[in-house]
Amino acid sequence: MQFEPDFTLPLTKTGKSQTVFPPPWYYGVTYIAAHVKLAGVGNLIPEFFRADGEGWVYIAEFISTSEHNWDFMYKEPDLVQYMEAAIGLKVEYEGRNYLYFPFMWVDKDWALVRGWLDGYPKKLANIRMTRLHPLLPKYNKVEPGLRLGGYATRGGGVMVRMEVQLKEKTDSLPLKDFGPLINIRRYPTRGDGEKDVYEVVSRQRDESKYGEIWKGDAKVTLEGYVNDELENVSVQQVYGGYYYPLYFRVSKTILLKRVEKVQVQS
Amino acid sequence: MQFEPDFTLPLTKTGKSQTVFPPPWYYGVTYIAAHVKLAGVGNLIPEFFRADGEGWVYIAEFISTSEHNWDFMYKEPDLVQYMEAAIGLKVEYEGRNYLYFPFMWVDKDWALVRGWLDGYPKKLANIRMTRLHPLLPKYNKVEPGLRLGGYATRGGGVMVRMEVQLKEKTDSLPLKDFGPLINIRRYPTRGDGEKDVYEVVSRQRDESKYGEIWKGDAKVTLEGYVNDELENVSVQQVYGGYYYPLYFRVSKTILLKRVEKVQVQS
Amino acid sequence: MQFEPDFTLPLTKTGKSQTVFPPPWYYGVTYIAAHVKLAGVGNLIPEFFRADGEGWVYIAEFISTSEHNWDFMYKEPDLVQYMEAAIGLKVEYEGRNYLYFPFMWVDKDWALVRGWLDGYPKKLANIRMTRLHPLLPKYNKVEPGLRLGGYATRGGGVMVRMEVQLKEKTDSLPLKDFGPLINIRRYPTRGDGEKDVYEVVSRQRDESKYGEIWKGDAKVTLEGYVNDELENVSVQQVYGGYYYPLYFRVSKTILLKRVEKVQVQS
Amino acid sequence: MQFEPDFTLPLTKTGKSQTVFPPPWYYGVTYIAAHVKLAGVGNLIPEFFRADGEGWVYIAEFISTSEHNWDFMYKEPDLVQYMEAAIGLKVEYEGRNYLYFPFMWVDKDWALVRGWLDGYPKKLANIRMTRLHPLLPKYNKVEPGLRLGGYATRGGGVMVRMEVQLKEKTDSLPLKDFGPLINIRRYPTRGDGEKDVYEVVSRQRDESKYGEIWKGDAKVTLEGYVNDELENVSVQQVYGGYYYPLYFRVSKTILLKRVEKVQVQS
Repeated sequence: MQFEPDFTLPLTKTGKSQTVFPPPWYYGVTYIAAHVKLAGVGNLIPEFFRADGEGWVYIAEFISTSEHNWDFMYKEPDLVQYMEAAIGLKVEYEGRNYLYFPFMWVDKDWALVRGWLDGYPKKLANIRMTRLHPLLPKYNKVEPGLRLGGYATRGGGVMVRMEVQLKEKTDSLPLKDFGPLINIRRYPTRGDGEKDVYEVVSRQRDESKYGEIWKGDAKVTLEGYVNDELENVSVQQVYGGYYYPLYFRVSKTILLKRVEKVQVQS
Repeated sequence: MQFEPDFTLPLTKTGKSQTVFPPPWYYGVTYIAAHVKLAGVGNLIPEFFRADGEGWVYIAEFISTSEHNWDFMYKEPDLVQYMEAAIGLKVEYEGRNYLYFPFMWVDKDWALVRGWLDGYPKKLANIRMTRLHPLLPKYNKVEPGLRLGGYATRGGGVMVRMEVQLKEKTDSLPLKDFGPLINIRRYPTRGDGEKDVYEVVSRQRDESKYGEIWKGDAKVTLEGYVNDELENVSVQQVYGGYYYPLYFRVSKTILLKRVEKVQVQS
Repeated sequence: MQFEPDFTLPLTKTGKSQTVFPPPWYYGVTYIAAHVKLAGVGNLIPEFFRADGEGWVYIAEFISTSEHNWDFMYKEPDLVQYMEAAIGLKVEYEGRNYLYFPFMWVDKDWALVRGWLDGYPKKLANIRMTRLHPLLPKYNKVEPGLRLGGYATRGGGVMVRMEVQLKEKTDSLPLKDFGPLINIRRYPTRGDGEKDVYEVVSRQRDESKYGEIWKGDAKVTLEGYVNDELENVSVQQVYGGYYYPLYFRVSKTILLKRVEKVQVQS
Repeated sequence: MQFEPDFTLPLTKTGKSQTVFPPPWYYGVTYIAAHVKLAGVGNLIPEFFRADGEGWVYIAEFISTSEHNWDFMYKEPDLVQYMEAAIGLKVEYEGRNYLYFPFMWVDKDWALVRGWLDGYPKKLANIRMTRLHPLLPKYNKVEPGLRLGGYATRGGGVMVRMEVQLKEKTDSLPLKDFGPLINIRRYPTRGDGEKDVYEVVSRQRDESKYGEIWKGDAKVTLEGYVNDELENVSVQQVYGGYYYPLYFRVSKTILLKRVEKVQVQS
């Protein structure tokens, strides 16, 4: 595999200072998630999407690395671990269903930048979720009745709070009916003649594997604050809560369409 | 079990706002540790201890709760999870060996305060260590050759950096020859007639259980900065590195001696 | 001035690693504050205090150092700067009025420990407030109409949010009618024969100087979360908002009374 | 002034959730800086730049906002305040001198993203610097002999530490001889047909104003860590240290050249 030294900033001749190393990228994730029906999501999607409010909210812990920095696993754990929270929607785009994330928060810079490269609208937040320990007298394993939870706060506001109480194992996630991922790569031009990037893309997972999936009940609260417009979004129904590990690998996105940006008078 | 509502500040009538809830306290820990010989530790211990430099350095992840706030496991994970780094020394006190920690860092307020209650000199630091994920293509399980690492930084300086490469399972830790824990409860008087606390105590574990212990090679770096005097401490030898989970429960300390504080002229 | 090397942990022979250096302590503060009437404060105070709900809420930025670490001003700014938020109440104790803080949050370990030494119930929080810059086209100076604000969040919850809009200069603060400071030094015993500290004290300021005090309107929101019981506290009235700098120096506390702790059956 | 609701992610119909609001952007800055001669900078610049090692290192505090979110000054101070540290170099590009920043660290997401939009290689770091308070007995004003300092740490390593001792006022900065700013807008393509952005640009300041500039001696330490290659960079000489406030306004960048990215075989 070839190594691209100028994939991302900062640019050095070796490429070893890059914020995000070139793909493939590996992801080991543990999710606390909820399948929900949301009201008031119209403001959260671009004009060219449609949404009926079916959604997927999660808090998750990621262990993730590029092929080129597995050594950070022991040399710099901060650059291969992050927390993530997100609000996903089933959207319709040109007659097909997709999974779109109008809001996504992480707690590391490289996770933020890597997300932006593929069109995820990541911001930084303070994200926490339940962790187990195999030797504790309680919370030592996944089992019926176990309560898990988490939250994301950003600046002066609470973005998401979740609780899930497990009931039983299940075979699959309702997420499989949401369709492929859809994202928007967006970097505005900053001067005459510069490239303006505004592309609808679909991020591809070239490998993927679920661990044991547990299902149960869930509670979800969305609040938002001045820079995260969740004040008009409400949770109408919670269909179920989930807890599961997932592995996947990402190498590229597929371009669906270039958005023609109307020039703004300045 | 009775609940003490005024065990720690803040004092409310319910006791539900306490920074540290009353014991018993449960600890599920994962350690990356090294058995070392240190030079220059004379400044790090009080006059009444002796040390030959045999030491124990670790970075660890804790899931920990009082009997009274198991619900925080899902409602407020931030108050039951913390990271810890520490430098331990085998010290002699009144003819017996003990394990004494001249430096200990954590990343949560309640872990700091709980530590001070029992005589641990905890400060806040930024602490990171390797985590595994069962579905990743590498770093999915403990095995020979696995490299683990971590560090603690505090303010403008690096306190500790560690790397361990695993070789094999082992039955026990060299730590068992260090002796019982010894700590110093210390809260200075702040005015005439107020209590001055200066007590040598031993923290008790009323339950304890090790998981699988792995041994290997290790590298340890100690640096320090203006408020953490490690500049004259050097690592002379690293006897071995360790990786293991541990469970223990704590309810109390045992008073060994009250230190007579010489009054300072002000 | 004599230097006490074992004033606080960690104990080294030089005393240079102490979390809190011995007094005197110097404080340069900038406050955004509000004079309020609160309902539901009964749970927030010990049995031996009375309160009618008159309160003082603030967000503030502190530059503060001991006499012994002025060099940290340039060597380690993190150890001389902190943010603080607090809820204060006018309480009656043995027939006299005092200013008592049932809740106080800071963002540094040494500020937390220093507070505990004198009986302040400090926890860590994420605290932000407006800052000005002399060369910006707006927000370059204090003036009528200026809007200032801030907040404190802790873990998964919002503790306090405030906004103040300035109207005019004023000569003094309503705080002067609250009475002296009253605090509770509290370190629980952890084993047989160990000292249990439970003292009502009054923190003394041996020097104090106000800068220009501005007054205006204010909005205050209190929320709390599972470990900070503000859910039954509401803001009934806001009498006014304030913005002002203050300098003070602290050397000691005065003991008012020792609380006889009823022994808890364990 | 027109408001572009889809300038940056996340995209909502109102545009109020954008990570970075559209320009113009206002900056009120306070700098601690040093004029230095660095050795070993060859790896830090792209092939098409030349550098002789003359450099400019700073730690700074920013109050900054877009025209569209002045209300965040009191509603969400976290989104208008940040800390920044940077290593600048005088580089030659196509026969002209420029000021290029191979490394730049900030402590907020929006400052990072805004930087990337204009070609600054910003990463997150923990950054601190001296602050004064007008009422403290020391450190109450800028004056000869005053010592100021700061640092940036990132993950497990120290990036920069600085100290400056002031001597006297001066009229201007050596920075004026470094030339205009030069940056590299870089967003890699992620799939067939997608735009790859690789542009050499110059960021424009359409307004700028210095406050009082103070000069003195300085000490600068550069360390770096596994993802920030400063290990071969050393400070050969420190010409002087500086402390000053600056205001500037930014609306756009000017395209100097598009870099033809050689396609990488995957």
